[in-house]
Amino acid sequence: MQKGETIWYIPDGYIPPESTNDLLSHESICVLNCQERKAQLAITIYFEDRPPLEKIAYEVPAKRTKHIRTSELSLDGEKIPVGVPYAIEVESDEPIIVQYSRLDSTQPELALMSTIAYALK
Amino acid sequence: MQKGETIWYIPDGYIPPESTNDLLSHESICVLNCQERKAQLAITIYFEDRPPLEKIAYEVPAKRTKHIRTSELSLDGEKIPVGVPYAIEVESDEPIIVQYSRLDSTQPELALMSTIAYALK
Amino acid sequence: MQKGETIWYIPDGYIPPESTNDLLSHESICVLNCQERKAQLAITIYFEDRPPLEKIAYEVPAKRTKHIRTSELSLDGEKIPVGVPYAIEVESDEPIIVQYSRLDSTQPELALMSTIAYALK
Amino acid sequence: MQKGETIWYIPDGYIPPESTNDLLSHESICVLNCQERKAQLAITIYFEDRPPLEKIAYEVPAKRTKHIRTSELSLDGEKIPVGVPYAIEVESDEPIIVQYSRLDSTQPELALMSTIAYALK
Repeated sequence: MQKGETIWYIPDGYIPPESTNDLLSHESICVLNCQERKAQLAITIYFEDRPPLEKIAYEVPAKRTKHIRTSELSLDGEKIPVGVPYAIEVESDEPIIVQYSRLDSTQPELALMSTIAYALK
Repeated sequence: MQKGETIWYIPDGYIPPESTNDLLSHESICVLNCQERKAQLAITIYFEDRPPLEKIAYEVPAKRTKHIRTSELSLDGEKIPVGVPYAIEVESDEPIIVQYSRLDSTQPELALMSTIAYALK
Repeated sequence: MQKGETIWYIPDGYIPPESTNDLLSHESICVLNCQERKAQLAITIYFEDRPPLEKIAYEVPAKRTKHIRTSELSLDGEKIPVGVPYAIEVESDEPIIVQYSRLDSTQPELALMSTIAYALK
Repeated sequence: MQKGETIWYIPDGYIPPESTNDLLSHESICVLNCQERKAQLAITIYFEDRPPLEKIAYEVPAKRTKHIRTSELSLDGEKIPVGVPYAIEVESDEPIIVQYSRLDSTQPELALMSTIAYALK
């Protein structure tokens, strides 16, 4: 039984440039791999005004979840810039499930948002 | 391969009339166009008590995202009024993926909400 | 073309019992009717420990949206109690699209959450 | 008519370790059972770095909702640890609908997030 899909989208990516207090503003791409085999991800980052950063590699072991901080992703040393609107495509060689969440502590009290990503079927 | 759908809905549109501090209260219609061709959007705004504003044009280039602020949309000079409940229909001539987010800074500490829009299939 | 579905679910209903400042804590069932005919809704409220309140009537005109405050719904004078977990079923005689949002001002700074409801297909 | 699905996923589980004021930081798995028969759930918890806690039992009566606090779930006395990223799989012997919400009161003003879970079809 196929537990999930292999292509997922998150159109609203944004790393808040500022944080207050101890909680760092950040986004997470939360991936669940329920399969018996590891999933090899290829994450592509789309921008408003320049070509995408294509196929950043990431691995999620079998029967595990990974909550991936977008600020940790990089391609040939290039990271996602903060304070810039972007979008995310997650491809996987195994079926997975993807949820996106953002914690914003630009101001002293944090704000949260979350949504299941959009799966191609 | 068709990456997305061509008709999307967001029933809960609302531009908060007030902002505090530096962060402006706003909504974004976040569109991702993964296709090799530009997408021509037609955005329709539905209200509670009057006819819709129909088919506001907007273009998203190939392999790009656009995070569209709803306060910037206008039809023949008419904008979406603030403080009024409304709803959004996004049509596109190419498959796209749409997410909706709102930042509310009516009070000093911001609040966030987000959801993948609803796609017709 | 059928623009939406006729049965929608929102499992996480909750009317916060307290508010601070000017912004009242509330939930909205945001309904969009893109059809050429009015939609007649029947809203059922499920509880944790007692039988549901069944088929509260509500009308959404053609080509209009309604952002329905759950605190305004009532059946034979009975309203949804505040501070109690409940769930919502929205049935419609015409295809509609439904999004659920909550604003919580229990504390001085508001919090928001939102999601497209779950449609039966 | 089948009202819902039998397998649901929530990749972004996280119990905030701290709370302020009277509102306890918590997550809820909100389940709606519209069927005429009770639903027997088996909830599996996936982690980043160890094997899952498998098939925690939970019952939702016919025509009722349950808003399940994740901090109350346990398997052989083992609970979900706070402050650790994890993911949730909800299986049911009857069709149900599932929504996930988190209230975070790490800081004095609360934050909320919510999404309909992802259903296998």
